[in-house]
Amino acid sequence: MLTKKVRIVPVEVVMRNVIAGSLAKRLGLKEGNRIDPAIVEFYFKNDALGDPLVNDDHLRLMNVATPGVLRELREMGHAVNKVLEPFFAERRMQLVDFKLEFGVFHNKLILADEISPDTCRFWDMTTGESMDKDRFRKDMGKIEEAYQEVLARVCG
Amino acid sequence: MLTKKVRIVPVEVVMRNVIAGSLAKRLGLKEGNRIDPAIVEFYFKNDALGDPLVNDDHLRLMNVATPGVLRELREMGHAVNKVLEPFFAERRMQLVDFKLEFGVFHNKLILADEISPDTCRFWDMTTGESMDKDRFRKDMGKIEEAYQEVLARVCG
Repeated sequence: MLTKKVRIVPVEVVMRNVIAGSLAKRLGLKEGNRIDPAIVEFYFKNDALGDPLVNDDHLRLMNVATPGVLRELREMGHAVNKVLEPFFAERRMQLVDFKLEFGVFHNKLILADEISPDTCRFWDMTTGESMDKDRFRKDMGKIEEAYQEVLARVCG
Repeated sequence: MLTKKVRIVPVEVVMRNVIAGSLAKRLGLKEGNRIDPAIVEFYFKNDALGDPLVNDDHLRLMNVATPGVLRELREMGHAVNKVLEPFFAERRMQLVDFKLEFGVFHNKLILADEISPDTCRFWDMTTGESMDKDRFRKDMGKIEEAYQEVLARVCG
């Protein structure tokens, strides 16, 4: 595996195709409704602050990213989503939402960090069951089985 | 006084010239540093949800405002700030931040709601003391005196 040492941009880019989790709570919406086109959220990566939701002006104020970089993060988020959503749909998994992180490598933004059931919400397209970290968060059990099933569908 | 019955846009538009309050908490920044140019925040007006911070995509999802309306809200926020900030500075009050609400009247966005020490943060430019609702929030006393002083400086 080729590894690249990047300077991580301290922004979590969250893409959402379906209402779930913190979005449902924030806006008082029912989980499960489709969002089309997908929406993008930026969170400031800072454990002590609890990774707060931020807007473009906040990130400018913090000198975290210029408007040009934010535009690029949005575009790349949508581009990744356009690849991943059908990829998982073909494997009978609905890609509900996911988090991306980016790094700067030779002055270019590149995708960094993992894409996994720790960073994505997957719902089984037949049963609607969670196949991701929500099983742990909500104490639903069968966590390892779900992760193994994701692996099997992706690599099978 | 001429009153107009408007359809309120359920968005609180917050303009910030100085770091204070929830912004300092959200981003872990020290209160008092100047923000230039001012930053804009949108909050979804909903008491049950605690008026959460939202981004443009959230407001589109909720059908609360189109991108065009959001652009107009930002522009009007900055325009109001450019009038109010020097107005209060001439009266030795620093306009730290303030909230605006807008309504639709005959298909046009117009400023609605009050501008007062309940919706603005004012700091005395000499002493740095709060002259607004923070005196109540932080149990600092002399609330009525501060409001009277604001009135005197504005109308005096």
